[in-house]
Amino acid sequence: MKIIVINGPNLNMLGKREPGIYGKETLEDLIDYIKQKFGDDIVKLEFFQSNHEGYIIDKIHEANEKFDGIVINPGAFTHYSYAISDAIKSVSIKTVEVHISNIHQREEFRHKSVTANACLGQISGFGFDSYILGINALINLTRLQ
Amino acid sequence: MKIIVINGPNLNMLGKREPGIYGKETLEDLIDYIKQKFGDDIVKLEFFQSNHEGYIIDKIHEANEKFDGIVINPGAFTHYSYAISDAIKSVSIKTVEVHISNIHQREEFRHKSVTANACLGQISGFGFDSYILGINALINLTRLQ
Amino acid sequence: MKIIVINGPNLNMLGKREPGIYGKETLEDLIDYIKQKFGDDIVKLEFFQSNHEGYIIDKIHEANEKFDGIVINPGAFTHYSYAISDAIKSVSIKTVEVHISNIHQREEFRHKSVTANACLGQISGFGFDSYILGINALINLTRLQ
Amino acid sequence: MKIIVINGPNLNMLGKREPGIYGKETLEDLIDYIKQKFGDDIVKLEFFQSNHEGYIIDKIHEANEKFDGIVINPGAFTHYSYAISDAIKSVSIKTVEVHISNIHQREEFRHKSVTANACLGQISGFGFDSYILGINALINLTRLQ
Amino acid sequence: MKIIVINGPNLNMLGKREPGIYGKETLEDLIDYIKQKFGDDIVKLEFFQSNHEGYIIDKIHEANEKFDGIVINPGAFTHYSYAISDAIKSVSIKTVEVHISNIHQREEFRHKSVTANACLGQISGFGFDSYILGINALINLTRLQ
Amino acid sequence: MKIIVINGPNLNMLGKREPGIYGKETLEDLIDYIKQKFGDDIVKLEFFQSNHEGYIIDKIHEANEKFDGIVINPGAFTHYSYAISDAIKSVSIKTVEVHISNIHQREEFRHKSVTANACLGQISGFGFDSYILGINALINLTRLQ
Amino acid sequence: MKIIVINGPNLNMLGKREPGIYGKETLEDLIDYIKQKFGDDIVKLEFFQSNHEGYIIDKIHEANEKFDGIVINPGAFTHYSYAISDAIKSVSIKTVEVHISNIHQREEFRHKSVTANACLGQISGFGFDSYILGINALINLTRLQ
Amino acid sequence: MKIIVINGPNLNMLGKREPGIYGKETLEDLIDYIKQKFGDDIVKLEFFQSNHEGYIIDKIHEANEKFDGIVINPGAFTHYSYAISDAIKSVSIKTVEVHISNIHQREEFRHKSVTANACLGQISGFGFDSYILGINALINLTRLQ
Amino acid sequence: MKIIVINGPNLNMLGKREPGIYGKETLEDLIDYIKQKFGDDIVKLEFFQSNHEGYIIDKIHEANEKFDGIVINPGAFTHYSYAISDAIKSVSIKTVEVHISNIHQREEFRHKSVTANACLGQISGFGFDSYILGINALINLTRLQ
Amino acid sequence: MKIIVINGPNLNMLGKREPGIYGKETLEDLIDYIKQKFGDDIVKLEFFQSNHEGYIIDKIHEANEKFDGIVINPGAFTHYSYAISDAIKSVSIKTVEVHISNIHQREEFRHKSVTANACLGQISGFGFDSYILGINALINLTRLQ
Amino acid sequence: MKIIVINGPNLNMLGKREPGIYGKETLEDLIDYIKQKFGDDIVKLEFFQSNHEGYIIDKIHEANEKFDGIVINPGAFTHYSYAISDAIKSVSIKTVEVHISNIHQREEFRHKSVTANACLGQISGFGFDSYILGINALINLTRLQ
Amino acid sequence: MKIIVINGPNLNMLGKREPGIYGKETLEDLIDYIKQKFGDDIVKLEFFQSNHEGYIIDKIHEANEKFDGIVINPGAFTHYSYAISDAIKSVSIKTVEVHISNIHQREEFRHKSVTANACLGQISGFGFDSYILGINALINLTRLQ
Repeated sequence: MKIIVINGPNLNMLGKREPGIYGKETLEDLIDYIKQKFGDDIVKLEFFQSNHEGYIIDKIHEANEKFDGIVINPGAFTHYSYAISDAIKSVSIKTVEVHISNIHQREEFRHKSVTANACLGQISGFGFDSYILGINALINLTRLQ
Repeated sequence: MKIIVINGPNLNMLGKREPGIYGKETLEDLIDYIKQKFGDDIVKLEFFQSNHEGYIIDKIHEANEKFDGIVINPGAFTHYSYAISDAIKSVSIKTVEVHISNIHQREEFRHKSVTANACLGQISGFGFDSYILGINALINLTRLQ
Repeated sequence: MKIIVINGPNLNMLGKREPGIYGKETLEDLIDYIKQKFGDDIVKLEFFQSNHEGYIIDKIHEANEKFDGIVINPGAFTHYSYAISDAIKSVSIKTVEVHISNIHQREEFRHKSVTANACLGQISGFGFDSYILGINALINLTRLQ
Repeated sequence: MKIIVINGPNLNMLGKREPGIYGKETLEDLIDYIKQKFGDDIVKLEFFQSNHEGYIIDKIHEANEKFDGIVINPGAFTHYSYAISDAIKSVSIKTVEVHISNIHQREEFRHKSVTANACLGQISGFGFDSYILGINALINLTRLQ
Repeated sequence: MKIIVINGPNLNMLGKREPGIYGKETLEDLIDYIKQKFGDDIVKLEFFQSNHEGYIIDKIHEANEKFDGIVINPGAFTHYSYAISDAIKSVSIKTVEVHISNIHQREEFRHKSVTANACLGQISGFGFDSYILGINALINLTRLQ
Repeated sequence: MKIIVINGPNLNMLGKREPGIYGKETLEDLIDYIKQKFGDDIVKLEFFQSNHEGYIIDKIHEANEKFDGIVINPGAFTHYSYAISDAIKSVSIKTVEVHISNIHQREEFRHKSVTANACLGQISGFGFDSYILGINALINLTRLQ
Repeated sequence: MKIIVINGPNLNMLGKREPGIYGKETLEDLIDYIKQKFGDDIVKLEFFQSNHEGYIIDKIHEANEKFDGIVINPGAFTHYSYAISDAIKSVSIKTVEVHISNIHQREEFRHKSVTANACLGQISGFGFDSYILGINALINLTRLQ
Repeated sequence: MKIIVINGPNLNMLGKREPGIYGKETLEDLIDYIKQKFGDDIVKLEFFQSNHEGYIIDKIHEANEKFDGIVINPGAFTHYSYAISDAIKSVSIKTVEVHISNIHQREEFRHKSVTANACLGQISGFGFDSYILGINALINLTRLQ
Repeated sequence: MKIIVINGPNLNMLGKREPGIYGKETLEDLIDYIKQKFGDDIVKLEFFQSNHEGYIIDKIHEANEKFDGIVINPGAFTHYSYAISDAIKSVSIKTVEVHISNIHQREEFRHKSVTANACLGQISGFGFDSYILGINALINLTRLQ
Repeated sequence: MKIIVINGPNLNMLGKREPGIYGKETLEDLIDYIKQKFGDDIVKLEFFQSNHEGYIIDKIHEANEKFDGIVINPGAFTHYSYAISDAIKSVSIKTVEVHISNIHQREEFRHKSVTANACLGQISGFGFDSYILGINALINLTRLQ
Repeated sequence: MKIIVINGPNLNMLGKREPGIYGKETLEDLIDYIKQKFGDDIVKLEFFQSNHEGYIIDKIHEANEKFDGIVINPGAFTHYSYAISDAIKSVSIKTVEVHISNIHQREEFRHKSVTANACLGQISGFGFDSYILGINALINLTRLQ
Repeated sequence: MKIIVINGPNLNMLGKREPGIYGKETLEDLIDYIKQKFGDDIVKLEFFQSNHEGYIIDKIHEANEKFDGIVINPGAFTHYSYAISDAIKSVSIKTVEVHISNIHQREEFRHKSVTANACLGQISGFGFDSYILGINALINLTRLQ
């Protein structure tokens, strides 16, 4: 089983950016944390981060052929990128939306996700564990099929 | 570690109610599925279901003394029960909100949760696995502390 | 044929409560009026009133097995109880929503019903006759099937 | 007792128009169905259909002298014709609004009626029986006076 | 100088319709009142009333050739007939909007006029005198040119 | 008969302020124009202008004893001064609201008047003639009583 | 192939009405322009204009039997006539909505069409060519079937 | 004189719940504080707390016979329980709404009370003294009658 | 202890203004009523009324040095004067907002207070007693400190 | 004459993406279809597709020098890219907006176009023919100049 | 060159009022800071502060004759005083709006300025330097003319 | 001191794009104008323009290490790019938002900035001088620290 983890804008600044909200660990720490949880025999993971809406859309399209599932944290694009939402709908593999912080506890505009309705489900608020839970969700769903 | 799983209104009708959305399995099947995933040595689970907002609030208050965490599916109360939201805020143990279906894919009024901002996080759209993921989230968080 | 008539919050105060809007007759008068219109050979009627959203939901669930139809006046719950709306959707028997007063002539918030879309239809504004018309609607529909 | 049944725009297309919503029976079938239910000794019925807001208003004005009540299905005018609403308020006979389909289960704009607050009451969702119930409501109310 | 006075829907019911708001005098009384105020040597007046939006539009178009000004009380069309608003804009003669009652003291939907912005000005709240003031406004403006 | 004409903020700048909208004539020209139209034997006129909401309220209160009517152009206060609206309601003499320009043809916020519902009526769009029409309206109404 | 071109309110004033927006050519010029583009061998065209919502609805109903397609410019009815929208849905032939001006560049209320969702498609902003494009669209679609 | 003090959901958690907002004193402390202020000879007080909307409605109905007034803190129900609002309207004794915190300084949804319009008045922001002031208000009003 | 009682616009018209809402007693009666309740040994009271937002702001600033508390009835300014709200925030003494009528039972715009969030608390609906309760609230709070 | 056809995000997935809405043919099929309709002697066509808002803006700027017109399907950017809207306004060549599906029949957010007001006109709902019609519109307009 | 610096309500409380937002320096400190930056040979400065909307309007009118530019911090009036906005439009000299704090980082109601659209430009968020920048802007613009 | 000036989408079209709003000078002219104002000894300036949201975010991140401040004109991204807003929050250097035109005088959607709340302050409406003022603001603030 192969899963791609896509991180959206400003997630490359993890650890530097507003540590009160996102913690002090970096994107590299996040990737290490995830890799450590899942052996290569369970799931093959690939990681992608971009601040460009367009590259994220390109990557989702590519994933259609090469992966069995997508875990995506669209960052701020969550709240206005109907193009990413359409991209997720345009591929046949399953997608899970994850957020490090609980978006329902933050500014009003972050309460609404325009991408979640294109996804299988959404996980929000568990720090780095949101990614772990998202990958587990994809693994479980695939096993059941 | 002790966790209580609280199910809100109409979840006793699982399997009977709108199977197109919620599947054909019953509340008992859900409980069995969860119990099967977690041995008693990992976590002690208790289950509660009520169609009464008041009993759910009472149970959240009680949980404060007796449990280490709450996994709650508030059903339709998710969208208007500020009283349950306040109840969750009034206790010091961690709470995770879960939903069987992806609430972002359903009617407009279901896109907004008034209880999620009182919780640690929210998991939505993974069928019965939403509960499994929610319990896992609580276990991980407790381990880390 | 068996029909349950469910009355929601404050309908036990009929006759006492705002007689300018609801008239001077009591809930007992209402029940007598209905019974008098329908002989036991036409339809078996049962009556239930509660100020508790939870007991109304419980009763709707029970009705699924025991009755052929529901006539419900959800009172103020009409305007916010998505949980009662879901309860009606969770049962397979037909439900008719009735209101004594014309809700479209009253306060703005009473113009919107969150329960009506779960019902077969809605009847509003004919005093006690709203119930008579609602029961007739259920009888006709059953005969036709 | 004399009642006029007024049907608004597109109801002449009944049976042809969106049969998934309105059924396969025509306006003539509707009229026959109603006539069959009420003998001439009970109530004298007249029927009028127009796609013209103006003719419907004219007819409501005329009815004031010639009829004891109006049963009206304003069709799409329900949702924006304040002129028909004012027309109903301008006459002293009682008016009942009826709808074949349950307007609360359809598009958002159909949930709001600008004419219902000018009527005695509203009946929605019972197919052709909405008219039968509406006529019965008028007969009962007249008998009581 | 020639002016046409156009009255919209339900104004033929003046005197019969809601006398608490519109007074007890009829449309004929209104016409007499106006005629009495203005001698034929001052202004030639013509009167038109219709419950049909279409005939009112037709009449506005015709007026373009035959009259020097229009005094219009669009009745309920004031609040939604963008077609009448466009009709007024399509003619080159001056138009004044009048209302018998003060529309700002009535229901919320009557506070907004979609036709007033197509008119020279609006006069509201002076009973039959609203028409007298409107005609005077047209006479003054013409004299000044 | 005694009438006070109250002009609100910025009307002292008439002729200087945005002549495209308000014309080139000054407040003095306006006062002269009005005086010229009405002989002292018809009506005694007094004029007051202030840029201070408070002085306008004080003047309305005083007018209660000393005048038979008020013609007021509240300027921009029209759109937010609930205090002036309350002041008009607090006096027993009749008040007419006037505007030089047609407020329905200008910015969105000018379409709504919070003071008009406290007045007898509103006249908008006739240039300086709006005042003449307003005074005439007050004279007519007083004559009729 | 037979197509009817329906023009709504005020389009009879083309050339006279607001030439800055609609140009100086008349409705007759429009008809000539269209006829000139399409020989009788390609498509049989009929033209209808009315300021009456009711006659437009009647004509749409009639077209169902007599034509293969409708090109409609509903004028101002575009923005509020749910009755015309329902009429288009009630017929089985294809309908195309056209506008001379680009409705997205005009007043806010013109940005929303309540009729477009009942049509096959919408063409807006190309002057008289909007009609040519609309007829072409219908011809192409029919050829393909 | 007899007054019942009704406390709504989560007020049993006073002292435990968000002490930054509600202080550290418990519901028992509140009751003691109130009792201490009013001797039994001044007013007979009874106290009731429930997390159940239904029991609060039941209690309001009962109070109608047994008490001279109600002081109610509806907690979160303040913001959506139209059923409690109707219950207060259904009884003939006077009701005062009180809040410990200043609801106007908290989240947006707490600024609106759906129950206050059914009450005599509202007191908000004075800690436990809100209750003292509410009881005093009832005593004064009764003395004056 | 020294308290200033500030009354906003139109409160000088008490007794004259809309007695159905505000009663027949005047501002002088109000002042007498308050003085009578509190002996000079309990609290030194000063009274100020103005129809000018600016003088009310000036007075609030002055009060900072000279008084221990403010009881303010901002009248209609309650609903739009962010400047008064800022003034209250700019002083370090405690402020209580009072209203004679229950603002939640009146027009929609009166339901929202822009000044209450700057105050310690709000008391609404108890007639002249709202002031008594407000002064008591200030006295109690000061005693406790 | 030279025209560039710009396709926005996810249009490279045509044929794969939601075939229920967009059909089974691919972007290559679309390009072939268009080329086949227009000989090189009529119009020189160039095609560009990108999922990147930035590259689409760059391309619009470049087109200013190199092309006589633009046909653009901005995909989901239609609904939020004010930057593309500004880009279209920044060039002097004519632009036509096209959509394969009828955007008025889809989700609420797709009813609004932020780019259409920068274009000459908009064509929506005719499948691949929307492009053909758009190119024809540009050709006609150029011929007329 | 002569510039007047107008400060609105509560700015006389600078240093005392909410120092967390506005700093500890007073209005006198502000004036000194500005004077120190600009020698009398560069620009003649005058300073005015008032809590009265009316005096601010008066001063803007006066400035028209006596100054070459206005720098205004309208304080809370920024958000509702359409009268000040009209006053700025009524004078022919240039006006710059300044704010000490960044109004976009504060309460929702402070994000909207009703006065900024009447000004040349707006500067917000630079503490006392907002005034320096505003004066510089006026000087530069005047030099360029 | 080192400052980067970032220009967003379509600012490369300055001089070509809507000169009525943005003037006739180009981006190069803007850069020259800025350079000419500030000697290299005062501040080292770098300039960056992109139509790509992603490259702007990348550049903001890079700036964190290499510059002491950012002056940004986000163009149309100002109104919807929450991603750029988050990028500005993710860096520790100070950012100033500038606009050439006064955004409060343009279309409604331009009145709201989603990026300004992440910046130190905003300057809008002074043509190229907005940049000069922005750079000055950064220099002053740095000097003071």
